[in-house]
Amino acid sequence: MTSPGFVAALVAELGERCRVVTDGDLLASYRQDMATVVPGGLPCAVVLPRTTQDVSAALRLASSYGVAVVPRGAGTSLAGGASAVEGCLVLSTEAMSSIRSLDPLDRVAVVEAGVVNAALDRAAGEHGLMFAPDPSSWEISTVGGNVATNAGGLRCVKYGVTRQSVLGLEVVLADGRVVSTGTRTTKNVAGYDLTGLLVGSEGTLGVITAATVRLSRRPVVPPTTVVAAFASLEAAGEAVALVVARGPEVSLLELLDGTTLRAIDAWKRMGLAGIEAMLVVQVDGRFAGDAAAVASLCEEAGAVDEPAVSTDPQESEELLAVRRLAYPAAEQLGQCLVEDVGVPVSRLPEMIRRIDAAAARHGVTVLTVAHAGDGNLHPTFVFDHGAVGIPAAVAAAADEVFAAALELDGTITGEHGVGVLKAHWLERQVGADSMELHRAVKKAFDPLGIMNPGKLLA
Amino acid sequence: MTSPGFVAALVAELGERCRVVTDGDLLASYRQDMATVVPGGLPCAVVLPRTTQDVSAALRLASSYGVAVVPRGAGTSLAGGASAVEGCLVLSTEAMSSIRSLDPLDRVAVVEAGVVNAALDRAAGEHGLMFAPDPSSWEISTVGGNVATNAGGLRCVKYGVTRQSVLGLEVVLADGRVVSTGTRTTKNVAGYDLTGLLVGSEGTLGVITAATVRLSRRPVVPPTTVVAAFASLEAAGEAVALVVARGPEVSLLELLDGTTLRAIDAWKRMGLAGIEAMLVVQVDGRFAGDAAAVASLCEEAGAVDEPAVSTDPQESEELLAVRRLAYPAAEQLGQCLVEDVGVPVSRLPEMIRRIDAAAARHGVTVLTVAHAGDGNLHPTFVFDHGAVGIPAAVAAAADEVFAAALELDGTITGEHGVGVLKAHWLERQVGADSMELHRAVKKAFDPLGIMNPGKLLA
Ligand SMILES: Cc1cc2nc3c(=O)[nH]c(=O)nc-3n(C[C@H](O)[C@H](O)[C@H](O)COP(=O)(O)OP(=O)(O)OC[C@H]3O[C@@H](n4cnc5c(N)ncnc54)[C@H](O)[C@@H]3O)c2cc1C
Ligand SMILES: Cc1cc2nc3c(=O)[nH]c(=O)nc-3n(C[C@H](O)[C@H](O)[C@H](O)COP(=O)(O)OP(=O)(O)OC[C@H]3O[C@@H](n4cnc5c(N)ncnc54)[C@H](O)[C@@H]3O)c2cc1C
Repeated sequence: MTSPGFVAALVAELGERCRVVTDGDLLASYRQDMATVVPGGLPCAVVLPRTTQDVSAALRLASSYGVAVVPRGAGTSLAGGASAVEGCLVLSTEAMSSIRSLDPLDRVAVVEAGVVNAALDRAAGEHGLMFAPDPSSWEISTVGGNVATNAGGLRCVKYGVTRQSVLGLEVVLADGRVVSTGTRTTKNVAGYDLTGLLVGSEGTLGVITAATVRLSRRPVVPPTTVVAAFASLEAAGEAVALVVARGPEVSLLELLDGTTLRAIDAWKRMGLAGIEAMLVVQVDGRFAGDAAAVASLCEEAGAVDEPAVSTDPQESEELLAVRRLAYPAAEQLGQCLVEDVGVPVSRLPEMIRRIDAAAARHGVTVLTVAHAGDGNLHPTFVFDHGAVGIPAAVAAAADEVFAAALELDGTITGEHGVGVLKAHWLERQVGADSMELHRAVKKAFDPLGIMNPGKLLA
Repeated sequence: MTSPGFVAALVAELGERCRVVTDGDLLASYRQDMATVVPGGLPCAVVLPRTTQDVSAALRLASSYGVAVVPRGAGTSLAGGASAVEGCLVLSTEAMSSIRSLDPLDRVAVVEAGVVNAALDRAAGEHGLMFAPDPSSWEISTVGGNVATNAGGLRCVKYGVTRQSVLGLEVVLADGRVVSTGTRTTKNVAGYDLTGLLVGSEGTLGVITAATVRLSRRPVVPPTTVVAAFASLEAAGEAVALVVARGPEVSLLELLDGTTLRAIDAWKRMGLAGIEAMLVVQVDGRFAGDAAAVASLCEEAGAVDEPAVSTDPQESEELLAVRRLAYPAAEQLGQCLVEDVGVPVSRLPEMIRRIDAAAARHGVTVLTVAHAGDGNLHPTFVFDHGAVGIPAAVAAAADEVFAAALELDGTITGEHGVGVLKAHWLERQVGADSMELHRAVKKAFDPLGIMNPGKLLA
């Protein structure tokens, strides 16, 4: 329940400087993020600050009224990280979307949190550079959201996750103070790595208003794409192991399992019958021989046909399209819960077998794709469109999947974050003593506990 | 002053399981680290645990007696990070030096803190892999020390600093609890990045007993080395800018200034007269054309002769030897204070000019080498062998150098850490609010404040 007077005070202080939403219907549209299984609460207001000072003023007010604050970028979270809690203030970065500076020589940009990932990447592209993190939501998600979740993506097998591209942050603490972390230099060891601590903190430690990011060289030649099909998951797993151990450095290494391929085939009729796993690989180096080396390792592992290899950008996109169809194909079948576990690369086939066993045991449909080069799997649980919340069988199967990931020395989340959906699982991964450290760190930043309550820490 | 009874209790509990030093002369040898300008205090005891349980027992005792603990690897810190405080317990990791596991397929090793960097790199080399962090102290410094300082090195311009090679840690908290952070997977966003927070924490948050590290591919061909000489610092700075902006990816990019070159020449007679700056560059990719491209960019920037280029490993080592002579040459001239500032690459020449101006103003000798590709400079202040502590003129010149680094959007320390020497400077870089966060984080891990007091946080 919101303290009386908060919304009025917010409108009085910020209403003329930026948008403050208080209309019921509009408020309701901020309940949820893309984790639609999380119902979310109704916010008391949504504020869309235009400046860091606006953010500071909003947080100062929220602190003094004791109102919970849910930071929100584009709301593409698949973990409920940006879902609202009843009576909270949703703080959306939509209106903070300018690139403050971009220095091609030092390869550094300073961007506001609401800048869309693809917009930054395009701006960098004008200088032959790129913003390396490329979550599949790149056309819609924000840099602030990417930083707050330490987003991964397809090319992070070569270029690293978001953390590796963040040099410093501007952050507003729960009490409204503005703190800068990091520097514009690639190396800096002055003090604790607060930048790194804030990356992946899912809005629970403060609101990120701007990020100083490192831009990467854009590959000089377009990537070459290799697609290989396998009659068994084992063979595909063997190919992944061979490529990782003996192949050239790849810039993308994706795996699709048989269930996913059947769903794509049922929808798009691509002639995928009999294929139990597919690898999509890209190399973006300058060595023509690299793609051939990947293809021959796939053959060594038993690919069913000669792998398709293309250097043509458009043909490459077409080959990659199969991978991009995986999620839409799952959506054809019903509501989706996209999960996100990680294991050491050598355990990938075992993990997929454990996923399939859990699915079979509980009678649920699971389609798995994996950023195989990083051992990061997305088992997607499909269930009835009519269902409200997560059906019990799905929850039980997902729990088995999490437990299996931990047994195989892995993680319950490789890139989507803990959010609401896995808050009750975190302690099983990190242990009770670590949870105590987590809570102490949270308290160091947010003593009143108003920042994104219920997320990350249950 | 140490609580009475602590040393006796320590010997009673651990004396049979591991070495406990209480002898005066030996104790005195643990006063200092390689920052010999820091006198250090006399420890009450030095313990050399053999197991994580030993570390835990020692810290539990220290906590209950309120005794300060100074973690120590090889003691090669150049910031006084491992220098003892009067009456403290020095906890040395020397006896924890086993590689617990090394998995070439997943490219992951679990190593105890006391393992020497070069030993791990050699073990990785047997599988065609390497441990990327290569501080110049690689033959003597420990992985634990590298992690605790987030050490950089020559090849981190391509392969990243220590942080990028650390997946997880085993750490003993001040109260003796053992906590594990991270996973064996390259991607993991479950909870706060406590691994990253501990990297670079300089022994102030806990004792790192083991690290799960990521191993990198070892380059398949030996590096090609390019050495270019310049008649002015500006020309060398221009060459760095050209290489960074338009050149191939380099695996080493070092700059030596005129003062350094004159010191080397005076000592070794290498015919360096008239040279005001030298660049040593390596490329370790498979493209023969890369080294030539670097050489021609150096010529474009005005190198005095045709740059020397060598693919022969031994000749390469000889070319690199000039760089390795920089520090020994400085030591020929007197006592050294090796500093460690960082600036954006584009500001390198300006920073060197500011260093030279400060040196001239205060009448002190400063030799500067830089990991130029990362904008990380080591101005080395030379003064009389007889001096005790840092002479006032040197301190004043160093202060100007730190101030200049901050003015140029840089950092007071790129890789050596804050230690004792820069503890009073940290707030000038990060600001008062960030200092408060630092202290709150410290308190979250070490509420009694026994871990490495006086380091990092003044
Ligand atoms: C189709 C699709 C594909 C996806 N693919 C990927 C993928 O490949 N890799 C991947 O990692 N993720 C992926 N995701 C998940 C999601 O896109 C990422 O987590 C993304 O980084 C979230 O960005 P956002 O701007 O939408 O943030 P939101 O969803 O709005 O918020 C995400 C979290 O960050 C916090 N937050 C947002 N902005 C701020 C801020 N400025 N300050 C503090 N906290 C903030 C929120 O409170 C929340 O906890 C995908 C999602 C979809 C729908
Ligand atoms: C000749 C020379 C060259 C150097 N070159 C470089 C270089 O290129 N790059 C670079 O970054 N540094 C360099 N250094 C500095 C130094 O070698 C590094 O900081 C190194 O990482 C320290 O390792 P160590 O084992 O000697 O740690 P120590 O010096 O013993 O300790 C360093 C700090 O880490 C803490 N610490 C050590 N072990 C642990 C542990 N297990 N748990 C918790 N805290 C711990 C200590 O308390 C201290 O604060 C150089 C030093 C010398 C003498």
